[in-house]
Amino acid sequence: MYARPGLGLREREIATIAALTAMGTAQPQLKVHIQAGLNVGLTKSEIEEIIIQMSVYAGFPAALNGMQAAKEVYSSSDASEFDQDEPN
Amino acid sequence: MYARPGLGLREREIATIAALTAMGTAQPQLKVHIQAGLNVGLTKSEIEEIIIQMSVYAGFPAALNGMQAAKEVYSSSDASEFDQDEPN
Amino acid sequence: MYARPGLGLREREIATIAALTAMGTAQPQLKVHIQAGLNVGLTKSEIEEIIIQMSVYAGFPAALNGMQAAKEVYSSSDASEFDQDEPN
Amino acid sequence: MYARPGLGLREREIATIAALTAMGTAQPQLKVHIQAGLNVGLTKSEIEEIIIQMSVYAGFPAALNGMQAAKEVYSSSDASEFDQDEPN
Amino acid sequence: MYARPGLGLREREIATIAALTAMGTAQPQLKVHIQAGLNVGLTKSEIEEIIIQMSVYAGFPAALNGMQAAKEVYSSSDASEFDQDEPN
Amino acid sequence: MYARPGLGLREREIATIAALTAMGTAQPQLKVHIQAGLNVGLTKSEIEEIIIQMSVYAGFPAALNGMQAAKEVYSSSDASEFDQDEPN
Repeated sequence: MYARPGLGLREREIATIAALTAMGTAQPQLKVHIQAGLNVGLTKSEIEEIIIQMSVYAGFPAALNGMQAAKEVYSSSDASEFDQDEPN
Repeated sequence: MYARPGLGLREREIATIAALTAMGTAQPQLKVHIQAGLNVGLTKSEIEEIIIQMSVYAGFPAALNGMQAAKEVYSSSDASEFDQDEPN
Repeated sequence: MYARPGLGLREREIATIAALTAMGTAQPQLKVHIQAGLNVGLTKSEIEEIIIQMSVYAGFPAALNGMQAAKEVYSSSDASEFDQDEPN
Repeated sequence: MYARPGLGLREREIATIAALTAMGTAQPQLKVHIQAGLNVGLTKSEIEEIIIQMSVYAGFPAALNGMQAAKEVYSSSDASEFDQDEPN
Repeated sequence: MYARPGLGLREREIATIAALTAMGTAQPQLKVHIQAGLNVGLTKSEIEEIIIQMSVYAGFPAALNGMQAAKEVYSSSDASEFDQDEPN
Repeated sequence: MYARPGLGLREREIATIAALTAMGTAQPQLKVHIQAGLNVGLTKSEIEEIIIQMSVYAGFPAALNGMQAAKEVYSSSDASEFDQDEPN
């Protein structure tokens, strides 16, 4: 699926992070895709923008729970020590 | 929201189209954002890739209903006459 | 259910209108309960406040679709001719 | 939102507790609003009536999980020691 | 998927009709599978039992909307003229 | 509900396991019904077929979380020691 032409990996991860945040029933998979998003070059602040944007479409609880998932990903990976947004 | 830094308009529309397709409870708003996606430069095939990708995360009915929304947007706009993917 | 002690009919209809708006999968039943809410004395503006409040918890599409349901109830009943908010 | 005219705080909390129970994807926020409901004067039995009522609209699992959230709120606060329903 | 061993076609359609009724976001697909259920030998009353059972797990609106889907399937097919439950 | 005529207990549990897996908001109740399914004679592989089938209708996260629920049921019961699929 992610190898199909038409959208890049970065855009596919944006779509998936948005959808899983909005659905609110897939926290484990959301965490996997937040990590995948970091791996394909999304910064933490970009991921958080996607998640915050979901408050408009799916409500604040969905966005808050998405932010919680992001925090858990950050704190369980090297990503928590070296902020990818300001890589010096 | 869409004017916040960090993500471009194109990426924000990708996120919104993905989320509304996955939620499946917001067909009128999905149509608005499919049109908005076309307006910020997403091609029809890119929009359809986002929608099809949602079959993985929210099931085939969500993706099929999203495709139906896309068709209705196309057929109610000039976009239906001139395929934006092959503009020449 | 509505005859159980502890909450009045007015409060039970508030709860039901809120829930059905937030769920977004029960438009016919939402309309029934918007009418029921009018019948037990909720004003149109109170019903609309409940629906708008749901934008916070379930997103703007849920609230907008709830408002659409309310408009359809108003226009299909006498309630559309005589605004119950200013009855005199 | 809660300061807008038209509905009192008590009624706004009824709407929110109902919606979050029915949605079933926002347990942390449901707990916050069960506590908020207690703070604006809803009794435990009134809160439980709202939650039980949701079994009709969103099914028994949603209501049972809402009751579980209520129990967790009660047991983590002074409210668990002094039942607000029988304050004397 | 339906050709995998372990469950028969009849049981697979029961599972699908139940799920689509409970989800409430896939009425067109629910209709397709109600027809498919009739085709693999489920009777109308069996299909209706599945749908009614969903009121327990997903609430009455989901079940009522599922029954509405069933009625629309029946009335748009020969199945509406000759009740398959009493074929003689 | 389960005593109504028209569907057997086995088929009713298939419907419930399918619906709760697809909904994704009722993990505790899903576990109860996976155990109930084992009790009425569904094998583990049949239960897993139902859950996997839900990936088509509700997406892979719903199916994966359903499989996780099944594993937790198996490991907390005698069922984990003696595989019911090969009872001899």
